[in-house]
Amino acid sequence: MIVMSITMIGTWEMAATGLAAAMPQLQNDAWAGDAVVTAIKAVEDNPNFQSVGFGGLPNAAGIVETDAAFMNGDNFRIGAVAGARDIANPIAVAQALAQEPANNLLVGTGATEYASTHGFVLKNMLTPKAAQKWTEKQKQLANSELNPYDGHDTVCMLALDSQQRMAVGTSTSGLFMKRTGRVGDSPLPGAGYYVDSQIGGAAATGMGEDIMKASLSYETVRLMGTGLSATEALRQAVYPFIAKLQDRGEKPREFSYVALRADGDFGIATNVPFPFAVAQADGPVQVYNAAPNGDHPIITPLKTN
Amino acid sequence: MIVMSITMIGTWEMAATGLAAAMPQLQNDAWAGDAVVTAIKAVEDNPNFQSVGFGGLPNAAGIVETDAAFMNGDNFRIGAVAGARDIANPIAVAQALAQEPANNLLVGTGATEYASTHGFVLKNMLTPKAAQKWTEKQKQLANSELNPYDGHDTVCMLALDSQQRMAVGTSTSGLFMKRTGRVGDSPLPGAGYYVDSQIGGAAATGMGEDIMKASLSYETVRLMGTGLSATEALRQAVYPFIAKLQDRGEKPREFSYVALRADGDFGIATNVPFPFAVAQADGPVQVYNAAPNGDHPIITPLKTN
Repeated sequence: MIVMSITMIGTWEMAATGLAAAMPQLQNDAWAGDAVVTAIKAVEDNPNFQSVGFGGLPNAAGIVETDAAFMNGDNFRIGAVAGARDIANPIAVAQALAQEPANNLLVGTGATEYASTHGFVLKNMLTPKAAQKWTEKQKQLANSELNPYDGHDTVCMLALDSQQRMAVGTSTSGLFMKRTGRVGDSPLPGAGYYVDSQIGGAAATGMGEDIMKASLSYETVRLMGTGLSATEALRQAVYPFIAKLQDRGEKPREFSYVALRADGDFGIATNVPFPFAVAQADGPVQVYNAAPNGDHPIITPLKTN
Repeated sequence: MIVMSITMIGTWEMAATGLAAAMPQLQNDAWAGDAVVTAIKAVEDNPNFQSVGFGGLPNAAGIVETDAAFMNGDNFRIGAVAGARDIANPIAVAQALAQEPANNLLVGTGATEYASTHGFVLKNMLTPKAAQKWTEKQKQLANSELNPYDGHDTVCMLALDSQQRMAVGTSTSGLFMKRTGRVGDSPLPGAGYYVDSQIGGAAATGMGEDIMKASLSYETVRLMGTGLSATEALRQAVYPFIAKLQDRGEKPREFSYVALRADGDFGIATNVPFPFAVAQADGPVQVYNAAPNGDHPIITPLKTN
């Protein structure tokens, strides 16, 4: 039995920026839900991360559209936005929506209207650098048969606080060059994220169109509830489904998951190279790199912040 | 062991209209996916059904916004639209989106753009009768503290065809007087619907904001995969989660589910009075009424078409 301690785990190396911002809050007994929002806001606000928030790469029409979700592990309340424009911090709106009695998932213009009428910061999320990438991609696509879609790195954050409360958040600008209104798994509960403070949580990043084909974040939490470690629960949830897709004649694309149990035990599963960041108690933010290896990834420390 | 036979099951009494339209197709060896679309289109096209398609009740701004999803049980391909305007048959667009390699879930203006550029019928989905109900409700709300939200009856259809292929579809105009852009569980895989042709399928109707708090359609399919009957799988998936919400201090609202196994065995679970329709082989369309009774509903035949 691992002794419970405050823990955050996030997807991709960019998560380290979020953990550095949020761990001091958790160390001061803040709510896990607020730590998740602090961490994701730090990533959304950084224009260098081209798949989340400000500086995220735009859709085929050249417009940045964001998806984000928040879930409270104490009571299963969910808030989410999808296909949202001009919202500076989609995760903050998602957290606010999780407190509403209804209308918790808002898409398109409705998400922006809610943000506008509830005092959230609006801004044009397109940076000159992202606009330039869009122009270059348009030229490339005119001269090739390339699959236009890439850049599907969602930042997911799971937090466990000093009072054993848990929360999860996700935020992304989705596939670069996606159709207007395209939504992936990130705002979809069960597929993109799930958390139960009495058991643990899990969240996904990768090709949303494939990840939404099964509720593997929900399934990982269910399996952790039977006593499995985070790693073993992910192993039993994720890899058999990827194999099942192949059995049915499909070509599975990228699947990467993080999980965190209510006792601080954490793990990941992935079928592609996948960096992630973790911080526990008063320790440093540690970045790991995971490489797929059958049904167990090989995990190597990348750096400590 | 029940002998497999072609079967359709749908939510609410309106499903009978859809089953009557689609069963002749299944009896002529059509694909389950086409039967699902035929059945749901018949419901969408009927202006008398005020929670689905044409004649559906509008949002707070007086605009009809629809959600629909389609899932192919052979390969887990999903297509869905959410917060969609002016699409005559959202289920038909969802079926088309399930065949795309990416961009399978489209929301808001993006859904309408796809429908428009792919030759689908567009129309104003607001009927004079629905507009009048909106005007009356506005007046009532001005004079009361009533919860404005009702009319959350999603039509869900599960089909099993003569070649043991399965599919599921959902379609709804969502909560009457919802916020612009509000989306419920109906387009969300795992929560609102799930199907695996080798096991079975399940789908939900009720208060989407609560149904999305757990992936119970996915969970019901998983449990049927362990050998449980449709009824027993639903019983183990649905009622414990409703109890868990209560344990966490929440007040669960309406939860109703249908399930169909790959051998034709079907069942339902509900915490409110819930009519549903079933047809098997060359038998008639039978409408049942279910009343909640602890963890087993009481089911009585309502009528045969």
